Amino acid sequence: MFQIRTDLAIESRELYKEKTSQEVPGVEVNKEEKDNIRITRVKILDKIGAEKMGKAIGNYITMEIPKLKNPDEDLKEEVSIQLAKELRDLINNDKTTKTLIVGLGNWNVTPDALGPKVVERVLVTRHFFLAYKKDEDETMANVSALSPGVMGLTGIETGEIIKGVVEKTNPDLIIAIDALASRNMERVSTTIQISDTGINPGSGVGNKRQGLNEEYLGVPVIAIGIPTVVDAATMVNDTMDLIINSMKKEAKIGTEFYSMLEALSEDEKYALIKEVLEPFMPNTIVTPKEIDELINNLSIIIANGLNISLHPGIDLKDVNRYIR
Amino acid sequence: MFQIRTDLAIESRELYKEKTSQEVPGVEVNKEEKDNIRITRVKILDKIGAEKMGKAIGNYITMEIPKLKNPDEDLKEEVSIQLAKELRDLINNDKTTKTLIVGLGNWNVTPDALGPKVVERVLVTRHFFLAYKKDEDETMANVSALSPGVMGLTGIETGEIIKGVVEKTNPDLIIAIDALASRNMERVSTTIQISDTGINPGSGVGNKRQGLNEEYLGVPVIAIGIPTVVDAATMVNDTMDLIINSMKKEAKIGTEFYSMLEALSEDEKYALIKEVLEPFMPNTIVTPKEIDELINNLSIIIANGLNISLHPGIDLKDVNRYIR
Amino acid sequence: MFQIRTDLAIESRELYKEKTSQEVPGVEVNKEEKDNIRITRVKILDKIGAEKMGKAIGNYITMEIPKLKNPDEDLKEEVSIQLAKELRDLINNDKTTKTLIVGLGNWNVTPDALGPKVVERVLVTRHFFLAYKKDEDETMANVSALSPGVMGLTGIETGEIIKGVVEKTNPDLIIAIDALASRNMERVSTTIQISDTGINPGSGVGNKRQGLNEEYLGVPVIAIGIPTVVDAATMVNDTMDLIINSMKKEAKIGTEFYSMLEALSEDEKYALIKEVLEPFMPNTIVTPKEIDELINNLSIIIANGLNISLHPGIDLKDVNRYIR
Amino acid sequence: MFQIRTDLAIESRELYKEKTSQEVPGVEVNKEEKDNIRITRVKILDKIGAEKMGKAIGNYITMEIPKLKNPDEDLKEEVSIQLAKELRDLINNDKTTKTLIVGLGNWNVTPDALGPKVVERVLVTRHFFLAYKKDEDETMANVSALSPGVMGLTGIETGEIIKGVVEKTNPDLIIAIDALASRNMERVSTTIQISDTGINPGSGVGNKRQGLNEEYLGVPVIAIGIPTVVDAATMVNDTMDLIINSMKKEAKIGTEFYSMLEALSEDEKYALIKEVLEPFMPNTIVTPKEIDELINNLSIIIANGLNISLHPGIDLKDVNRYIR
Repeated sequence: MFQIRTDLAIESRELYKEKTSQEVPGVEVNKEEKDNIRITRVKILDKIGAEKMGKAIGNYITMEIPKLKNPDEDLKEEVSIQLAKELRDLINNDKTTKTLIVGLGNWNVTPDALGPKVVERVLVTRHFFLAYKKDEDETMANVSALSPGVMGLTGIETGEIIKGVVEKTNPDLIIAIDALASRNMERVSTTIQISDTGINPGSGVGNKRQGLNEEYLGVPVIAIGIPTVVDAATMVNDTMDLIINSMKKEAKIGTEFYSMLEALSEDEKYALIKEVLEPFMPNTIVTPKEIDELINNLSIIIANGLNISLHPGIDLKDVNRYIR
Repeated sequence: MFQIRTDLAIESRELYKEKTSQEVPGVEVNKEEKDNIRITRVKILDKIGAEKMGKAIGNYITMEIPKLKNPDEDLKEEVSIQLAKELRDLINNDKTTKTLIVGLGNWNVTPDALGPKVVERVLVTRHFFLAYKKDEDETMANVSALSPGVMGLTGIETGEIIKGVVEKTNPDLIIAIDALASRNMERVSTTIQISDTGINPGSGVGNKRQGLNEEYLGVPVIAIGIPTVVDAATMVNDTMDLIINSMKKEAKIGTEFYSMLEALSEDEKYALIKEVLEPFMPNTIVTPKEIDELINNLSIIIANGLNISLHPGIDLKDVNRYIR
Repeated sequence: MFQIRTDLAIESRELYKEKTSQEVPGVEVNKEEKDNIRITRVKILDKIGAEKMGKAIGNYITMEIPKLKNPDEDLKEEVSIQLAKELRDLINNDKTTKTLIVGLGNWNVTPDALGPKVVERVLVTRHFFLAYKKDEDETMANVSALSPGVMGLTGIETGEIIKGVVEKTNPDLIIAIDALASRNMERVSTTIQISDTGINPGSGVGNKRQGLNEEYLGVPVIAIGIPTVVDAATMVNDTMDLIINSMKKEAKIGTEFYSMLEALSEDEKYALIKEVLEPFMPNTIVTPKEIDELINNLSIIIANGLNISLHPGIDLKDVNRYIR
Repeated sequence: MFQIRTDLAIESRELYKEKTSQEVPGVEVNKEEKDNIRITRVKILDKIGAEKMGKAIGNYITMEIPKLKNPDEDLKEEVSIQLAKELRDLINNDKTTKTLIVGLGNWNVTPDALGPKVVERVLVTRHFFLAYKKDEDETMANVSALSPGVMGLTGIETGEIIKGVVEKTNPDLIIAIDALASRNMERVSTTIQISDTGINPGSGVGNKRQGLNEEYLGVPVIAIGIPTVVDAATMVNDTMDLIINSMKKEAKIGTEFYSMLEALSEDEKYALIKEVLEPFMPNTIVTPKEIDELINNLSIIIANGLNISLHPGIDLKDVNRYIR
């Protein structure tokens, strides 16, 4: 059976189409091209689509922004605003919606610190509602935020912390920010995925084994994910393809080897590489050298998108104004 | 009615004795003098003692170490070891005890960051027990650790986060580390209070309104507190006393003013100063300039004490070995 | 001789006028009132002015913004823009000016971390000029930035580090950001002083004994300072005044004591308090509890002002756009 | 001409021996095997050795500690003590030696933060010598420490900052701590190289283009380096070798392709991979997922080694005592 491991719905779809030359059944796709942003809205409609994609039924919006690697300020603002629009369309919140923002990941490892950085920068208001005993406000919505850390730091599963806090604070909506692994270095820090299915077992870097979704937490969970690493096996895999292709063209050699590799499915090849790689390079991450700058930029973009989409009094033109 | 506001049981007792020239009823006191450490074990026995002291029934152990302001390594180790001993006596843990260490306070404000710093440095093991599906171990006990942050950062009451996590992870014991306010600058970073009554409303700096005690959390709560600030009104109060005293001696003046002040109870005088001070200096903290160095030293001392007292395989002579 | 110790020229002037009921000789003062900002431009013209003020000859611009304690976003932007205007007027830079921004203070002590925080947030460009071997650019000026730390962390005098770096990198201009001590809690986080005289011995909190000025560094030095602490003696002094005043009004007592205090000059009274306070409370700082939030806001405001004033391609309307 | 790019002398030697099956001329090698530590002391004697090795004339001591990936406390102490011994032998310091410790690298990128972390943890004393106007002391040596940051943060070349500071503070010795790139994931966080040749152009990750050596700085420079990353091309290279080897054994295919690859020198193959990889994956780093924990452990080990070797009053048995 065809099963793909990637955090990004758009990559699952690509892989399926590569293999089968068909659109994934049970999946609806809508595309929008802007100057700097390509938006793909993938809707997994049913169990068949879910199985083929290896992902839960629901919406997956992907914003691809290749220039985000070296963004200028105009582009950062454009992406923030587009992110805010997509979020508003997806979550249908209003001024009474109580949101808990969860920053997943390890704040001590730069490429995994995206979620905690967003939590630091986003506008938090729930304590004002408590202090003034108000249920709603014309300009601000009720927002709380938490970075639960990772098991290596706390000894506690992330999901346990979040579920415990959700049961005590009863938010209407959870938005979880996470650093993802991509199959493709091109996507690192240039692709934003928003989904209304939460975060589900098996995906991503790290030991996030318990799903963070409505089923477990009892509240709708929006996941915002950005690839910040590729895993080592993926990188080796892609590079080998590139090298063999370039060798084939130039020297007409390696065909035998390459034919054998081609006979393998993508997944079998990946598994082979993973198997060879694992013993001497377990749990390796591959990330750009300037990852600190990238995480910094991305945390501003996401915090902007959240501030604008959640609070009735913050407008598209307020981009950057409420960043901490 | 006589009510004193201070985080330290030893200060409550001093204030009571100052006023009444008597030992507090319903309170048992035991003292031990060492070269560098004076240990006072205050046991509040009943409701009367609790009322007089303004504190819950239970044990309050105070270690006073005046030289801890400029500690050498010998002293730091001596204090770590003594702290470990006191903790072992108080908590009666064994190798099956599951402990959750809670680092209270705001990691962004140096004098309030003691708890989070201890959490960073202490040995966390619960995830190994989960990974290996073990219930106990000969050398390590099951320890998890969490810094819940403060309301200004999360919008969530500290107590809600802790209670949520406790309900999911079911520890047998909570140890909460907190930066305290003292009435006396002398005590800042030189006094350690350990108590088995948890942390109760009204005490300390910060918005920790919900008590963190067995009643609320359903599990015994040990509180380790160290004064890292004095509040401004306290400082003004003490300084005025000093100045007026020195003036009285030297110049025989100010007697009228001083007599009036003396006619006030300590609490009335404090309230007067607080009232005058508050409008133009609300929520002010007073702390030593080298507070970063002090917090650093104290976090090592406490993490050492915790490591030694909690884990059966870590011994008094292992001081400093397991510090991160 | 009349000598006042304060970091703020505006406070020196107030103290002089309080005592003498006259304007300070050798000093020119210009005021501008806006809705939220009061600007006082003090020019010390000659040696007499310098001596009376206890400050070097030069310009001292003070922006007082009482509402900056609880700023909304409009106010923060207004202050950033005004700061940029004042800087542009003062420094007369153009697109070829090479600026070194120096963030003074200890990044581990929250109220002293203002300078390092600004350095983190400001736009740094010098390495691009080096990489592309350009001398100038239409949109960006050549800006480098450094946080030298404090002696307790490095063992090195701040001035030595800066002078060493200046001699190697040859900037045309230094802008030093520093957290100041004020005599008045009201000013903490609400007053910004810009001066073209650098930072001179004796002023401020901390061991910055070597002056950071053109004489020592060979390059003009702009100092941007914001009070983030008051010293303990100041606070006691001010509170005692308030209390005695309120007592005088209400109870007609304390007059004798007060008369004696009144007979002392401000400086004598301060010295007396300092003397009493010092032995049991050396090197104490007094700061608002929410100092993390204040430092965060102020670092954004100053970094904005610097970005706008230094780079030809960044405009007043670009406020917040280039903040990291 | 045979030129190898690696930070580690031991790897240069291996590569040379692989290719030529000979010991490198102009190089003296001494080995010592302990239970957990293998020590290789490589001495490059002359220009020929330097050319063959691609490294400066001088001493390169490598400690290989495979178990350091998951160290227990005993091992950490053993390594600290061995490091201290090697340092003492190499630097011949005494109680009058003034040392400047330089922590190279970007504190915002976890695998590059080793140097700055060591600077945070090491004992700094120079300011006490200044304060007490002493030249020497029986127990403590004069030590200062600095983390100059990286060009992306400051806009200034690291070498310029260090040289500037050296000229102002006149140390007798510089010890520079740096995170290295290895050709081999096995070495990451398990190999420590100490050398008395400083840090020389071309080596390592990052833009450290100016050599930090006695020639430039005018003072002997000891470099302590630990691989914390491998570069992506290296990883692909090694993995391809592994895969092709395993395929050859199992399936007797790929021989044609492999023969072609074998015909290339190691360096040509590496260059080919680098060329293919670079366009779509520039400046990538590969690092273990638990790099935060590794850097933390390593910073303690190195700071321990420095404390023990530099200060006459700190002994081998004082390991861990002076760690901050």
